[in-house]
Amino acid sequence: MNVGRIEKTLKEINQIGYSEKGMNRLAYTAEELQAKKLVMARCRQEKMHVRMDEAGNVIARREGRLPHLAPVGMGSHIDTVYDGGRFDGTVGIVAALEVVRRLNEKNIVTQRPIELMIFSAEESSRFGMATIGSKIMAGLIRADQLKHLTDRKGVTFKRAVEKVGLDISTMDKAIRTAPLHAFYEIHIEQGPILEKEKLPIGIVTTIAAPTRFRVTIKGKAAHSGTTPMHMRQDALMGAVEVAKKVEESARRMGEGTVATVGDLKVSPGAMNVIPGAAELLVDIRGQSKKQKQEVIHAILRKFEQLEMERRLEVAVDWLADNDPVLLNRTMITQLIGLCEQDHFSYKTMASGAGHDAMNMASLCPTGLIFIPCKDGLSHHKDEETKIESIEIAVRLLEKAVLQKSEDVHEGAYCKGGTAL
Amino acid sequence: MNVGRIEKTLKEINQIGYSEKGMNRLAYTAEELQAKKLVMARCRQEKMHVRMDEAGNVIARREGRLPHLAPVGMGSHIDTVYDGGRFDGTVGIVAALEVVRRLNEKNIVTQRPIELMIFSAEESSRFGMATIGSKIMAGLIRADQLKHLTDRKGVTFKRAVEKVGLDISTMDKAIRTAPLHAFYEIHIEQGPILEKEKLPIGIVTTIAAPTRFRVTIKGKAAHSGTTPMHMRQDALMGAVEVAKKVEESARRMGEGTVATVGDLKVSPGAMNVIPGAAELLVDIRGQSKKQKQEVIHAILRKFEQLEMERRLEVAVDWLADNDPVLLNRTMITQLIGLCEQDHFSYKTMASGAGHDAMNMASLCPTGLIFIPCKDGLSHHKDEETKIESIEIAVRLLEKAVLQKSEDVHEGAYCKGGTAL
Repeated sequence: MNVGRIEKTLKEINQIGYSEKGMNRLAYTAEELQAKKLVMARCRQEKMHVRMDEAGNVIARREGRLPHLAPVGMGSHIDTVYDGGRFDGTVGIVAALEVVRRLNEKNIVTQRPIELMIFSAEESSRFGMATIGSKIMAGLIRADQLKHLTDRKGVTFKRAVEKVGLDISTMDKAIRTAPLHAFYEIHIEQGPILEKEKLPIGIVTTIAAPTRFRVTIKGKAAHSGTTPMHMRQDALMGAVEVAKKVEESARRMGEGTVATVGDLKVSPGAMNVIPGAAELLVDIRGQSKKQKQEVIHAILRKFEQLEMERRLEVAVDWLADNDPVLLNRTMITQLIGLCEQDHFSYKTMASGAGHDAMNMASLCPTGLIFIPCKDGLSHHKDEETKIESIEIAVRLLEKAVLQKSEDVHEGAYCKGGTAL
Repeated sequence: MNVGRIEKTLKEINQIGYSEKGMNRLAYTAEELQAKKLVMARCRQEKMHVRMDEAGNVIARREGRLPHLAPVGMGSHIDTVYDGGRFDGTVGIVAALEVVRRLNEKNIVTQRPIELMIFSAEESSRFGMATIGSKIMAGLIRADQLKHLTDRKGVTFKRAVEKVGLDISTMDKAIRTAPLHAFYEIHIEQGPILEKEKLPIGIVTTIAAPTRFRVTIKGKAAHSGTTPMHMRQDALMGAVEVAKKVEESARRMGEGTVATVGDLKVSPGAMNVIPGAAELLVDIRGQSKKQKQEVIHAILRKFEQLEMERRLEVAVDWLADNDPVLLNRTMITQLIGLCEQDHFSYKTMASGAGHDAMNMASLCPTGLIFIPCKDGLSHHKDEETKIESIEIAVRLLEKAVLQKSEDVHEGAYCKGGTAL
C-alpha cells in the first residue's frame, strides 16, 4: 500500500478551499470544480477515460476486458459544508483513486469496466438540499425542482451552475441510463461508534433518512415581572416541552433511533418579556420506519396538549419525510465475507446521515463502508481520520470491486438495489 | 373632571416619537427632551416654577403657603421602550398635570409646596439600565457608574447626554438634598390582574425588584444523525431543563413570585447539528426575598445536576440581584382610606416591574398607584388604558396630595421611606 501517495492526494485536494476556519468547497462553486478537475487530471494520468455529466458529476472509466458489461462503480463527493473538514466525502474519492492506481501498478485487467464517480453537491449547506448530483443521476429529482433554490447570498441555483459551466436546462440529461453492476462508497462515520468500539470498518445496512420539520409556536408576549405564572402563554415554555418530548421519545426507542432539536429561536427575546413566539427545527432518524413514526406521533400528541393546557398555537412545516433505505443484502454479505477473510474487525451498523449511496441504491446494488473519525467529529476543521483506517478501507474496497468486476454470469444489470 | 383636557394632553405628548410601529421616545434622545419641554411649557402656563436638573429630570413647583416646608412630589417618566405604548410613564405625568390644573381652577393654595417630576430614562431599552434619572436624584448611583454604558448603535452615555444639553461631569449635582415630604406615582399595571378582577385601582405594597442572570451552557456540537442519544452533550437539552426548573420553581411559590426565561439562543443552530452551546436570560422577581432565594437555589442545584448527568459546563453571569422594596405603610393606609371613602374598588398588590417610585422610596414616604391596562399589554403599540381609569386615579391622587400637603405637624422630612 502506498500510504504516502494517499496522503499526498488528500493534501493536494485539501489545498483547494483551505482556510484556517476549515475547508470551503461548497456545492457548485469554483473550488468544488477545481477539486474535481484535479482528480480528473489524476484519473487521466491513470489512463482512465474521464468525462463530466450535465449535473457536474465526474465519471472516470477504467476499461474492462468486456466493455459491453455494466461497470462496477465507486466514489463519493468532494464538496464540503461551510468551514468543513478534510475527510468527509474526499476520503471516498482518494480511496477510489488509490484502488485504480493499485490495479494499474499490478497491471490487472478486470472483466467489467470500473468507474470512479465524484457526485456534485452532496452537502446541503449551500442550497438546503443534499446529494443533488447523485439524485439527478439516479433520476430521483428533476432540474425544474431545483430552480427555486438560492444560496445564503441570494444566488439562484440556475446562476450558480452557470458560473461553473453547467446549464440547468440540460441537467436532466445526467440521468443514468447506462446500467451499473454495483456501486461502493467509502465515507467517514461522522459519529463516535467505530472509534469507541475500536473498529476500523463499519458495513452499513440501512441509511436512516431523516424526517424534518419546523415547529412554530405562538403564545403571547407579556411583561415578565407583572404577569402571574398561571396567566402566561409563554411560547418558549411550549418549545421547551416539545424539545423534552423529542429527546425522551427517541431515548425510549433504543439504539436505532435519534431525534434532535437543532435550533430554537424565541421572539422578542428580551430579559423582561415573556416570549410570544418560538420556532424549533426537529430532525428525526431511525433504522426502523415504525419506531420513527412512534417518535413523530409522540411529538404531535404533545402539540395538542400545548394547545389545550398552555393556550399556545402550534404549526408544523414538514421539510422532509423519507423512509430509511435498506442496502442490498448480497453486497453486505460480500463485505462481511471479505472482512472476515482478511481479519478486519468490523460491525454492521446504520448510517444516521444521508449519503450518495442512498440514491445509487435505487440504480444498482450498493455498498457503503464507514471508517472511524476522531471523537465522531465531522463538518468541522478538526475532523480527523487515521491513515491506517483509510488503508484498511482501500484494501477492502479493492477486493470488493475486483470480486464484483469478475462476476460476469449474474446478469449485467439489476434495476433496484434492494430487490436482490 | 376635565376628561377632554386629559385626552388632549396625552395626545399632544404622543405626537412626539409617534410611528406606526409604536412610540419611540427613548432615554436621552431629542424626542424625550421634546416631550419634557412640552410638559414644562404646560406647567409654566399653570404658573409653576419649572427647572431641569443636571440628570435631565424635570421639577415643576407649585408654591405653597409655607414654602420652607418640604414639598409633596408626584410624577413618573415620559421616555418609552423601542416601539412602546402611549401610557407607560406618560399617564403618570398627565395625571399629575391634571391635578395641578384642578387645584388652580379651584384656586386652592396648599400648605406645603407641590412638585411635579418627570424622571429621565426610566426604561432600560436604550442603555440597559432602568430608572437612571430617579436613581441619580435618590443618590443610588453616581455618574461615573454610567460612563461605560452604550446604546445599540454604539453611542456612549456621555455623548448621548451631551446631545440633549447635559454634561456627565456635573450630573451628580442632581442628587436631591432638599427634603421631600412624600412622593406619589401613578402608573399602568403592565399586567393583567386589575383588568381581570375589574378593579380601577391597585395600591402597591411591594416592588419586586428582579434578580437577573445569564446562563451559558457548553456541550459538544455533533452530527444529529450519527450520534447516539446516550453519547450526546446537547447544550440545548441542558437549557431546556433549566427553563423547566425556572418555571416549575416559581409556580411552586404561589402568587408573589414569577420567573421567566426571556431569551434562549443556541449555537450553531442548524438542522443537522446537535447544539454545542446555549445561552439563557433568566429574570426572577418576588415580593418575598426568601421565596426568591428558594427559586434561585433550585435553579443553581439544577446546574450541578446538568454538569454531572449531561456532562455540560454551566456558567452564570449575574446581571442584577436587588431586594424587594417595601413601600411605606402610612402611605398605603392613606390610599386605602381614600379609596374606601370615595368607594373606589381597589386591591393592594405587588409590582412585578421596577418603577421610579422604588428609588424615591429611599428619599421619602412613597405611594405607587396602579391603573388597569387592556389585556395586561405594555411595551407595545397596542398598549391601552381607559380614560375612566385615568379619571379615578386623578381623583385619588388629588385627594392624597391635598391631604399630605396639609399635614404640617408631622415634621418636615423623614429620611428612608420604609422607616415610617
